[in-house]
Amino acid sequence: MLGVCYYPEHWNESQWADDARRMVELGIRIVRIGEFAWTRLEPNPGEYRFEWLDRAIETLGGAGLKIVLGTPTTTPPKWLIDQMPDMIAYDRDGRPRGFGSRRHYDFSHEGYRREVARITEVLAKRYGKNPHIMAWQLDNEYGCHDTIRSYSPVARRAFQEWLRARYRTIAALNQAWGTVFWSMELRDFNEAELPNLTVTEANPSAWLDFYRFASDQVVSFNKLKADILRHHAPGQDLSHNYMGFITEFDHFKVAADLDFATWDSYPLGFTDTLLRLPPEERQRWQRTGHPDIAAFHHDLYRAVGRGRWWVMEQQPGPVNWAFHNPAPLPGMVRLWTWEAFAHGAEVVTYFRWRQVPFAQEQMHAGLLRPDSEPAPGYAEAGAVAVEAADLPMPDTEPAPVAILFDYAADWLLTAHPQGREYSFKHIVFDWYQAVRRLGLDVDFVSPDGDPSAYRLILAPASPLVSDALAARLAQAVASGATLVLGPRVGSKTENLHIPSNLAPGALATLAGFRVERVESLDPAFAEPVTWHGETYQTRGWREATEGGAKVLATFNDGWPALREQRHGAGRVYSWHGLPDGDFLRAVLAPWAEAVGLTLHPVPETVRLRRRGSLTFAFNYGSDPWHGPVEGASGVRYRIGGARVLPQQIAAWERSPSHDPMGVE
Amino acid sequence: MLGVCYYPEHWNESQWADDARRMVELGIRIVRIGEFAWTRLEPNPGEYRFEWLDRAIETLGGAGLKIVLGTPTTTPPKWLIDQMPDMIAYDRDGRPRGFGSRRHYDFSHEGYRREVARITEVLAKRYGKNPHIMAWQLDNEYGCHDTIRSYSPVARRAFQEWLRARYRTIAALNQAWGTVFWSMELRDFNEAELPNLTVTEANPSAWLDFYRFASDQVVSFNKLKADILRHHAPGQDLSHNYMGFITEFDHFKVAADLDFATWDSYPLGFTDTLLRLPPEERQRWQRTGHPDIAAFHHDLYRAVGRGRWWVMEQQPGPVNWAFHNPAPLPGMVRLWTWEAFAHGAEVVTYFRWRQVPFAQEQMHAGLLRPDSEPAPGYAEAGAVAVEAADLPMPDTEPAPVAILFDYAADWLLTAHPQGREYSFKHIVFDWYQAVRRLGLDVDFVSPDGDPSAYRLILAPASPLVSDALAARLAQAVASGATLVLGPRVGSKTENLHIPSNLAPGALATLAGFRVERVESLDPAFAEPVTWHGETYQTRGWREATEGGAKVLATFNDGWPALREQRHGAGRVYSWHGLPDGDFLRAVLAPWAEAVGLTLHPVPETVRLRRRGSLTFAFNYGSDPWHGPVEGASGVRYRIGGARVLPQQIAAWERSPSHDPMGVE
Amino acid sequence: MLGVCYYPEHWNESQWADDARRMVELGIRIVRIGEFAWTRLEPNPGEYRFEWLDRAIETLGGAGLKIVLGTPTTTPPKWLIDQMPDMIAYDRDGRPRGFGSRRHYDFSHEGYRREVARITEVLAKRYGKNPHIMAWQLDNEYGCHDTIRSYSPVARRAFQEWLRARYRTIAALNQAWGTVFWSMELRDFNEAELPNLTVTEANPSAWLDFYRFASDQVVSFNKLKADILRHHAPGQDLSHNYMGFITEFDHFKVAADLDFATWDSYPLGFTDTLLRLPPEERQRWQRTGHPDIAAFHHDLYRAVGRGRWWVMEQQPGPVNWAFHNPAPLPGMVRLWTWEAFAHGAEVVTYFRWRQVPFAQEQMHAGLLRPDSEPAPGYAEAGAVAVEAADLPMPDTEPAPVAILFDYAADWLLTAHPQGREYSFKHIVFDWYQAVRRLGLDVDFVSPDGDPSAYRLILAPASPLVSDALAARLAQAVASGATLVLGPRVGSKTENLHIPSNLAPGALATLAGFRVERVESLDPAFAEPVTWHGETYQTRGWREATEGGAKVLATFNDGWPALREQRHGAGRVYSWHGLPDGDFLRAVLAPWAEAVGLTLHPVPETVRLRRRGSLTFAFNYGSDPWHGPVEGASGVRYRIGGARVLPQQIAAWERSPSHDPMGVE
Repeated sequence: MLGVCYYPEHWNESQWADDARRMVELGIRIVRIGEFAWTRLEPNPGEYRFEWLDRAIETLGGAGLKIVLGTPTTTPPKWLIDQMPDMIAYDRDGRPRGFGSRRHYDFSHEGYRREVARITEVLAKRYGKNPHIMAWQLDNEYGCHDTIRSYSPVARRAFQEWLRARYRTIAALNQAWGTVFWSMELRDFNEAELPNLTVTEANPSAWLDFYRFASDQVVSFNKLKADILRHHAPGQDLSHNYMGFITEFDHFKVAADLDFATWDSYPLGFTDTLLRLPPEERQRWQRTGHPDIAAFHHDLYRAVGRGRWWVMEQQPGPVNWAFHNPAPLPGMVRLWTWEAFAHGAEVVTYFRWRQVPFAQEQMHAGLLRPDSEPAPGYAEAGAVAVEAADLPMPDTEPAPVAILFDYAADWLLTAHPQGREYSFKHIVFDWYQAVRRLGLDVDFVSPDGDPSAYRLILAPASPLVSDALAARLAQAVASGATLVLGPRVGSKTENLHIPSNLAPGALATLAGFRVERVESLDPAFAEPVTWHGETYQTRGWREATEGGAKVLATFNDGWPALREQRHGAGRVYSWHGLPDGDFLRAVLAPWAEAVGLTLHPVPETVRLRRRGSLTFAFNYGSDPWHGPVEGASGVRYRIGGARVLPQQIAAWERSPSHDPMGVE
Repeated sequence: MLGVCYYPEHWNESQWADDARRMVELGIRIVRIGEFAWTRLEPNPGEYRFEWLDRAIETLGGAGLKIVLGTPTTTPPKWLIDQMPDMIAYDRDGRPRGFGSRRHYDFSHEGYRREVARITEVLAKRYGKNPHIMAWQLDNEYGCHDTIRSYSPVARRAFQEWLRARYRTIAALNQAWGTVFWSMELRDFNEAELPNLTVTEANPSAWLDFYRFASDQVVSFNKLKADILRHHAPGQDLSHNYMGFITEFDHFKVAADLDFATWDSYPLGFTDTLLRLPPEERQRWQRTGHPDIAAFHHDLYRAVGRGRWWVMEQQPGPVNWAFHNPAPLPGMVRLWTWEAFAHGAEVVTYFRWRQVPFAQEQMHAGLLRPDSEPAPGYAEAGAVAVEAADLPMPDTEPAPVAILFDYAADWLLTAHPQGREYSFKHIVFDWYQAVRRLGLDVDFVSPDGDPSAYRLILAPASPLVSDALAARLAQAVASGATLVLGPRVGSKTENLHIPSNLAPGALATLAGFRVERVESLDPAFAEPVTWHGETYQTRGWREATEGGAKVLATFNDGWPALREQRHGAGRVYSWHGLPDGDFLRAVLAPWAEAVGLTLHPVPETVRLRRRGSLTFAFNYGSDPWHGPVEGASGVRYRIGGARVLPQQIAAWERSPSHDPMGVE
Repeated sequence: MLGVCYYPEHWNESQWADDARRMVELGIRIVRIGEFAWTRLEPNPGEYRFEWLDRAIETLGGAGLKIVLGTPTTTPPKWLIDQMPDMIAYDRDGRPRGFGSRRHYDFSHEGYRREVARITEVLAKRYGKNPHIMAWQLDNEYGCHDTIRSYSPVARRAFQEWLRARYRTIAALNQAWGTVFWSMELRDFNEAELPNLTVTEANPSAWLDFYRFASDQVVSFNKLKADILRHHAPGQDLSHNYMGFITEFDHFKVAADLDFATWDSYPLGFTDTLLRLPPEERQRWQRTGHPDIAAFHHDLYRAVGRGRWWVMEQQPGPVNWAFHNPAPLPGMVRLWTWEAFAHGAEVVTYFRWRQVPFAQEQMHAGLLRPDSEPAPGYAEAGAVAVEAADLPMPDTEPAPVAILFDYAADWLLTAHPQGREYSFKHIVFDWYQAVRRLGLDVDFVSPDGDPSAYRLILAPASPLVSDALAARLAQAVASGATLVLGPRVGSKTENLHIPSNLAPGALATLAGFRVERVESLDPAFAEPVTWHGETYQTRGWREATEGGAKVLATFNDGWPALREQRHGAGRVYSWHGLPDGDFLRAVLAPWAEAVGLTLHPVPETVRLRRRGSLTFAFNYGSDPWHGPVEGASGVRYRIGGARVLPQQIAAWERSPSHDPMGVE
């Protein structure tokens, strides 16, 4: 289903009805409104102005649109900031981050939480039973603009209380942080400082706790609103629109209080600003986005939403906020939309209906131009609507490959990188990309999730492995799964100590090795490893290991690079360096085949994805790609055909007994 | 005429007479003094010490020198800062910019303005009728060291008052800024914040207004002094020494209160620190300066000064303040001086007479070394004096080419770049360079100026085009001129909104196209365009257009790159990408010839410039260049001859009927 | 002798005895303890807990170990910070540098000085006569983490008092700083501001005085403790562990109050973070360290310690704090240890005994792993212990080459660089490296030291040359020495003015030239000089000179690049550019031979060093190197043999009459 983001308050009321009519005509069924409208809903403290919103909902709903209504808590009014100036967050350099854009609040401020509860309750009471409202969006893009971690006096006090709740006694904190080191011992929780602005690096356990605290503040801030809405809007779903590559809070925990997850997909902007690509790759993908940047998040938010997820904001043309803002190639808006559906999205909502000619985002394209003429995305959205009407979507089935994804792992490696460039996100993205290049689908699994149903389980960056997770992984291996471990796995305890049995800690028996010592390296200086006669490269990290696991490949100086530990039919493979993409694929391919997976390697410009009996192909490149022949092995094309042109897609049905590509 | 900057307070009084004598001997006729001398004029609050200055003026004037006297307001004394510590400006990061160097004041501080008025009045009364004083310099280098925009509490209050005066009602401000976006609506002017230190980008209309405010504060600060001097020093000219590549305030508006403009020309320092040159070009020009860096400013300040302008500080040797400070090649001081005269300078004043052996600028060369021996610039200045005595200067005539130069365009593109590297200054410089490489002279025209007398009018970066400017441009085209528009022309309204008829807004009819959408690109990734069989490059920007103007060239994907709209004999050409220099010259050359201009393409190392019947040639390179043959078509060399050696110049007279090069 | 750093407070008391036993078994004779233990010694204000330390000392001492006891003043407890929050230092951006790591104090805070005196006195009284304590370490790594220069209000007041003491009258300060420039004149010392956060560069003389002040504060802070310990611990030596490449305070002056110097040697971390190496060199040395990085400091601290010096912390494996932290190649720990002994170290102390599994340094290797198993450094330390027992060390003799090393020169060139990349440290390191590549030993000489015993004296970066130093250098030259001067020598007076006779100031007569003017250049743009038919490169600086000294080589434009002034048998050579390594070696080689030195050029991977009759060779490379043949000219190998494998060493005795390599 298709949706669109709309801001009635930006337009003359006389336009609303026509806008709604055109939306429906185009095939739009859902409209999101209201998430930035606080000053229009309450222009002065306590003076509510809901009539315009009533009329907007009536106009849109009356035209046949279902509405997602936002709580406007991401943009508190100036009068509220002036009432309590200390509700502003502080950056890591100790500077207040003032009014004038958005997200200008500190999650820890009790006064602001009371105001949030108030405005949410008023809205929930007024619209909680409105039949046009299908769902609520709580706030907007938590964490955008680096807003999770505040270093304000307010945050400091809240952090002290959080520590008190976690540790009970100051002795426990001193033990957990190892404060005997450098005379950091505290005598009371109110002596605990925020870890920024220290002379040299602060205690990494303190950093990790601060990061946990900051994430927990988001969870409770979100729950505050969710509880009110549950009470007053019982029949309406709750959601939040997460933002790409933001990992400063635990999305799984926030989602526990929601009905479904959504995320905001801007493939061009993310490719320009978030990935670590060499210039030629940035150029290659400048107008398509990297072929994995959207899919990675689709799969992640399917996990976060426990299967239910949307794209809440889909890039419909050039945006305004990246370093550079090219136009998507013709076809890309349709491609991105179908890609989301292929990965299981219930809804794809474009941001936004009409380009607004003023303020910060005036250069952000909409489906319509500022003069209400269709922009290029308009026709592509319409094409999807027509195609989707003809193609009922089967249920999404579990993928054969699981990747462990732990937000706390990112925090730990940020707090304690050991090598300047070591990055959780980029390593996980590299591994995801390698698996996808083999033509395989991926599910992400949280550290509390159960990977035991998967045949191939990857842990590219899991420094924290609890006993419970270790047991679940052992269970999976015992039942024949293959587990692949990246370096640094199990290298730290909950408190960010080195385990008493050294890395991999709780996985020692399962993995069959012990880390003697490690080295971080400049990623510019590759370390070669020979594997089956070919020389591949690793970068940035090596670890020396001892133990019984079989050595499959070594570095030039003899340190094991890859090990294998067998447990019956189960296998545990461990990497002791960071392989580049070629190496990862070369190694993962036979391991995946060994557990019965059928590979369909694709060029770097093409991706495949199954949804039930349908297989989709997406061509991000400049050359045609050829899918399976119509009719062969029961292949029946539902969109496109065997020759998939650049920026085009294909979807075919296959008989269930056959392999995902429809060729045996 | 030649001048020099002199600081009597830096030297023993016994040296003054000898210094004055040597100046006159060298051919110096003007001396600038006093602009940093506040603590010597008023060592304690209200305790004036003018006797030394009286004697200095008498000594210099008595030797036959005319004096430019500075108001010392660029360096308020420590005792004044201590009286009102809030007179200090704040940087964009919110930090006070303290005492200890210069320009340590906030233009918005009323208390400081009172002090400025006081010291100016005292000086004006004492010296306003002194026959040796020919002119005053108000303050020194407004804007140097990024000092126009202050983010202080004082600036915040002044900005609020400025907004109140501009908008009258807060509703008007909310409309102009589009504050309905992100709930930014204000209820009163005293809620308006400075746009720095926000969570993400602040409203671009607010930024533009803040930049306008900051510029206006300079204008009124300058006018405060000008009014006092007009009253007490009626027969003396007023001026200010502008600094290279500083565009944070509107020089035209400041100059409206002055009699002539001056600027400070440091070709080597500017080339090292201000231009965007690849390393090989930085190396090539390290000891000559880029061949357009001085000329660009000469032409700009001729416009700012309404025809009357000086170089107030001419680099005489190595300086101290650039990243690297090489020595000019022998001949360059003379070349730079003559180049200023060729572009119409009344006076070239060297900074400084003698290198001072202490404090910040002790490594800044003077005409004399610290030990009073001549530095290399001394003889070169003397050579110019001798040559100039033999060569009466004809009046400067209008150039055939006009380039629109709008300070507000720079502010707008800074507030709202859309692509990270998009830069008003560098684009205008590129276009200037292209025209100059064709051997043409250039006049700059302000947005309030009248371009209608020009045959070729260029608007490389004019996002703001008022109805009045559009009408003047239409008038010029109607009378047969060619107008060349860069991308983004007319793309914004006065309030930085997208025009309701989209870009080019007020130029829609004249230009014959409408911008459908745009893309900003990484300048590292070129976009080729084929033009008359040759492939050229554009970088950083493209725009898709519709409309009736003829498409002259397209990008690879068919977007028009160049369009032509004819109006009788008039032509309007529009660029829809940012061409590099080769492309600009290839395209501008036939267009210039079509309006009757005779081109004389020069190598990248040579520049030509006419002044009345004289043509000058300047050789910045390492190979000789050959001018027209003596006698041919009435050519008569007044300086040098047809063979112009590296770092040398030539000047020849031509008969008026002939083309500027003196060859038909 | 070997030592190790140990933290009894990090481990269960039950481990102490076993640890002590294993240390002794390994050959360790000295153990350093206590320098970070304040909260364990005084958990609450005035509540002392020394019993555990008594027992630790008894256990270690009882096992036969001599103890170096640290004063814990580098890590004041949180309760102390809370008692006087203004004891925190401020960074150059004006931000307090808070509690949470170490070195969180301002050297100028009188209250903290009283606390430092108190805790030092208590410790001195308790342990000053303990027979196990052989020495004290005062504080830890002064200056680590950029902690010498504080910009706090406390520092500002102290700076004003320091200025008052230095100048007596404000007129003298105004004269010294040249405050007449830019109206900077002060009326009282309490008007003096810190030089940070000014609008543009502050007065360089003020900066230099501020740097001197900051250094003096360290000297007096250190002396405060030294005086107390001298009184209460009369038989115990005093020392401090200096840190690599830290030059913000005058090590010679601090050492004047100590008995010996020590330094902390981390070759891999320093190579990664401190040197300016092209990527291929950073890669080449990533697991060995640069072959001169340790030796340079060994030689420097031998000078600082007036002949008596240790390595107090020797890297034993990978560390945690560099950008990247590789593992040393096998053999390097032994090599580094022997290299220290070869340069004259009395003791090499490894940091640390056992890797601690928590807090900031948990990834810093020890001799033992966290599980108490030996790490690779353990066996290498043991090997040294065995070898050293067999090889009594002769006394260190003076080297033939002296390099002048003046901390104030670094401050001056930092305050007043003139070219962005000009760096005292890197220039001195380049010259050191060139001499060492010729196979020569080096002594550093302070500006107050006497170079007259050396045959070859180098002054690579000495802008300050006092009359007294000039006289000592003249004396050396008069007695036949060769003096080699780098550019900028003698270019400034004590107050950072240009000398009235211009550079080289006090050396004018001796050097035979005068600097007319200078230029700083982008080091990317080399300036070639031809020398004996070969073309070499200089970078970053040139100076034009006049005078009688013979010109040996010129730049392309004729400026002299190298000059020679003879004084009887003595020679003064002067550089007027910054040569690269090849050029330096080509020029220094014949000059060194001319004063009778025998060169033994080594590849870039090998270094030689003599200690008395022993010559050592160190192979940092990947190819074997061949030393002199056993028996030839009396050569007798004491460690290794003529074939020195990668990461291996050799040491041979030679008959005294023979040259250092043992070959005639």
